[in-house]
Amino acid sequence: MLEDNRIVVYDTTLRDGSQGEGLSFSVEDKLNLAKKLDEMLGLAYIEAGWPGSNPKDEEFFARAAAGELQLKNAKLSAFGSTRRANVLPEEDTNLRLLIAAKTPVITIFGKTWDLHVIRALGTTLEENLNMISDSVAYLKKAGREVVYDAEHFFDGYKANPDYALETLRQAHAAGADWIVLCDTNGGLLTEEVPGIISRVKETIPNARLGIHVHNDGDLACANTLTAVRNGAEQVQGTINGYGERCGNVSLCSVLPNLELKMGYQCLPEGNLKNLTEISRYVAEVANLSHNNQLPFVGRSAFAHKGGVHVDAVMKDRRTYEHIVPESVGNSQRVLISELSGQSNVLHKAYQLGLQMHKGDAEVKEVIEQIKQLENRGFHFENAEASIELIMWRTQPGYIAPFELRDMLVLSERRASSNEGLLSEATVKLQVAGNMLHTVADGNGPVNALDAALRKALVVYYPQLDAVRLTDYKVRVVNEDGTASGIRVTITSSDGHEIWQTVGSSTNVIEASWFALADSLEYALVYHLFKQNQPEASALQTV
Amino acid sequence: MLEDNRIVVYDTTLRDGSQGEGLSFSVEDKLNLAKKLDEMLGLAYIEAGWPGSNPKDEEFFARAAAGELQLKNAKLSAFGSTRRANVLPEEDTNLRLLIAAKTPVITIFGKTWDLHVIRALGTTLEENLNMISDSVAYLKKAGREVVYDAEHFFDGYKANPDYALETLRQAHAAGADWIVLCDTNGGLLTEEVPGIISRVKETIPNARLGIHVHNDGDLACANTLTAVRNGAEQVQGTINGYGERCGNVSLCSVLPNLELKMGYQCLPEGNLKNLTEISRYVAEVANLSHNNQLPFVGRSAFAHKGGVHVDAVMKDRRTYEHIVPESVGNSQRVLISELSGQSNVLHKAYQLGLQMHKGDAEVKEVIEQIKQLENRGFHFENAEASIELIMWRTQPGYIAPFELRDMLVLSERRASSNEGLLSEATVKLQVAGNMLHTVADGNGPVNALDAALRKALVVYYPQLDAVRLTDYKVRVVNEDGTASGIRVTITSSDGHEIWQTVGSSTNVIEASWFALADSLEYALVYHLFKQNQPEASALQTV
Repeated sequence: MLEDNRIVVYDTTLRDGSQGEGLSFSVEDKLNLAKKLDEMLGLAYIEAGWPGSNPKDEEFFARAAAGELQLKNAKLSAFGSTRRANVLPEEDTNLRLLIAAKTPVITIFGKTWDLHVIRALGTTLEENLNMISDSVAYLKKAGREVVYDAEHFFDGYKANPDYALETLRQAHAAGADWIVLCDTNGGLLTEEVPGIISRVKETIPNARLGIHVHNDGDLACANTLTAVRNGAEQVQGTINGYGERCGNVSLCSVLPNLELKMGYQCLPEGNLKNLTEISRYVAEVANLSHNNQLPFVGRSAFAHKGGVHVDAVMKDRRTYEHIVPESVGNSQRVLISELSGQSNVLHKAYQLGLQMHKGDAEVKEVIEQIKQLENRGFHFENAEASIELIMWRTQPGYIAPFELRDMLVLSERRASSNEGLLSEATVKLQVAGNMLHTVADGNGPVNALDAALRKALVVYYPQLDAVRLTDYKVRVVNEDGTASGIRVTITSSDGHEIWQTVGSSTNVIEASWFALADSLEYALVYHLFKQNQPEASALQTV
Repeated sequence: MLEDNRIVVYDTTLRDGSQGEGLSFSVEDKLNLAKKLDEMLGLAYIEAGWPGSNPKDEEFFARAAAGELQLKNAKLSAFGSTRRANVLPEEDTNLRLLIAAKTPVITIFGKTWDLHVIRALGTTLEENLNMISDSVAYLKKAGREVVYDAEHFFDGYKANPDYALETLRQAHAAGADWIVLCDTNGGLLTEEVPGIISRVKETIPNARLGIHVHNDGDLACANTLTAVRNGAEQVQGTINGYGERCGNVSLCSVLPNLELKMGYQCLPEGNLKNLTEISRYVAEVANLSHNNQLPFVGRSAFAHKGGVHVDAVMKDRRTYEHIVPESVGNSQRVLISELSGQSNVLHKAYQLGLQMHKGDAEVKEVIEQIKQLENRGFHFENAEASIELIMWRTQPGYIAPFELRDMLVLSERRASSNEGLLSEATVKLQVAGNMLHTVADGNGPVNALDAALRKALVVYYPQLDAVRLTDYKVRVVNEDGTASGIRVTITSSDGHEIWQTVGSSTNVIEASWFALADSLEYALVYHLFKQNQPEASALQTV
């Protein structure tokens, strides 16, 4: 048994998480992700694939076993199902592939719900019990730690409690090291959890229990925490809540609640502060936008917009922050806008490590610029990189890495041609004392402009090769239709950092140009400025 | 008192929701959203703004009071704070603006947490009690229904329970119709809810309680449901969980849990099935991607990826679906049945007064076209004029009022000139047998294109003079940045009718052209077709 306050963390991002719509990891991705999860979080188990379901996962386990994956903290687990009906375990391909994966841990799921046994599996309730018992015993005999996932446990219990509990008793009696209660369909209500778990504990009092839930009812986090309070020692989940349908429970929500609020220990001391970084890293590898609103780790999780909130937070962070953001590696963001005064700018300057003080000419200049640009339709709340550039540009010795002279963008469609609409852009740029003149075409005028700019810049700044525009948004600022002010917000990434820039103009091309130019300038200079920043620990005293 | 199983729904998408990062609604947006929320959900209260905090909200309430907003079900509420310290209620600007908003309901928040009273407000605990009591009494005297939001109630209770409860007692004694317990910082644990609410009920046993929570701990939905189980009769939340930081609780999660699983009634019978549509509509207006993973209403919520799941679901939907997706207006994503497609189109045809019947070639053609266009990134949920055009075009005798042949759009900026960026468009159009070739400049390429088109068309169709583009929105459809599919949605008006059209392409100019052309075509033909339509009263029986 573990100490009372220790919770074992079981990550299934690479297996159940990868079932999410739009997710697909290569073998290389999985090897990298497993290493990162192990190093940064140091969690107990990493479930990395289902060797019986696809050859990619077989390859993963073969390469891991061959020494490509050395884990310091976590045990690797291979996932599969109990044997098929009416087959001996040693003759079951799926079980054989699990053994062949050579992981210290094997996780198998079995059917709990009579509806599934009869309708989906097409076998008898009796044979299903044998399948569970045989399969667990077989894997234990092979010397593996066995995690038994009771699929649809809660639905099964509600439909036929005696049968559902009997499946658990079989798995436990056959030697399973863990009995994991799964809410596979994700529809469980939090209020149902304590009663059901207490029946499980009466039935198999010596079993170590785990919890595995999905978020279809928007209750995954609450259900997991409630299960822990009622005796579950292992929590299964995924980074960012990736997974089939509405996703698995997010470890990024479960872990900070358990550690910071409920007094449990889940990760080795000090690792919780890597949570935000791992969350963004996994999103990057998955090629999905990182959801700003994610609790604890989202970009907006500690962002303050209203003036009243900003004022209060600067007096005392607790007034509008439920935890210290740095404890999960996130940080406070004061959203700067026209309405914000000197104190917002000074706060930002402090975060950036810039020497600015109340009443300085630079501070007034920054506020004045923001005011003028917001009058022209800029909106900086969602474009911190543009704000940082404005602040850096006031610093002595700052030299812009390039300057635009001329541009010409055209889009053409002819009924006489089959080419559809063609876009082409010409730019003339001053870079490091040289005048560059380039042309490129693209899918649309902004894409062509981007291509022409990079064609010139990449010669001097090869690091721009890694920079990608990940999102592009356009809005009309006032309401007179196409002749109105237009605001463009661009999100960019170089694989490590994500930043947003803004441009506004009556002309969408010009607005795009402003945002694009800021994005590339930021990519070229942010490294220099990051060096000045104070330690997170210093920020906590603010 | 309400019947036992009735829950009152209070929507604050337009106020607290709009505090979310990246959200900004125009007055026009808010008027449209309020109408939709009222019609489609029929909820009890719509909190639409904070007249004391910005002039845009003042304008909203002025236009609503002047008759621009007629609500059938909901009561409109204006939001604000208790009076300032040491000021009479009648001299407090904020309270005066609340009265001036002329809404039947006024919601004010007051401070519960001693930390806030002293640190943020800088007044005494005693004066804060007076501020609450005076303000509620003043608004009640003015004849309004008063909702009292106890800001930071749960944190305040944990810090100083007696004082927190005393603030509620003051609000209740002064006549507040509702006492709403707010978890403003969103850090509340679900397990803390029952004990705290039971203390509240001991303190003010006759008060009607509401619950207002944020999602910073990923527990907003569970906390709301638990509060209802423990006696809260009103739930406050936003569509899609928009709101400051990690957002407010999502009504899209709370309502189906309460109605489908817990036996409560929240909306008029039959309205829950509009939930998915309103969820996507609000995202469209906010110009935010609709999150696929959203419980109940997300595109992925009932999408089955794994082969085992698909197979089981086709045998019995309950095997991997926690509710019937249609009960919230969502659908399973395994098979898109030709039948459901047909009936949707037939329903729309009936609304338009078109003669279409099951199995007609026109019906199949419409479905086929929609399918193809949606594959190319079109999205018709917020562009009914484009859908109507597709249907009309299948009708015998329909003649398009114009046809585009060629276009050339260019944007140019020269460092040697002071002109800024210039945009110019050339179009060649076929109109009523004649070829027209026009050129115009504009503020940006789309505006230039619009100007060139009108220059040609207005000669034949002078009524286009009255048509204005009132909004223009651009969205990246997938997520590879500026080279991705781009969807343009245009809102137009001729002073009587307002309509929306959509275009999609990899090229923003082409996407704009599609939406623009539909907009002008709709302007020219809708009069003809309106004549065929059945009376609104007949439509209600459909």
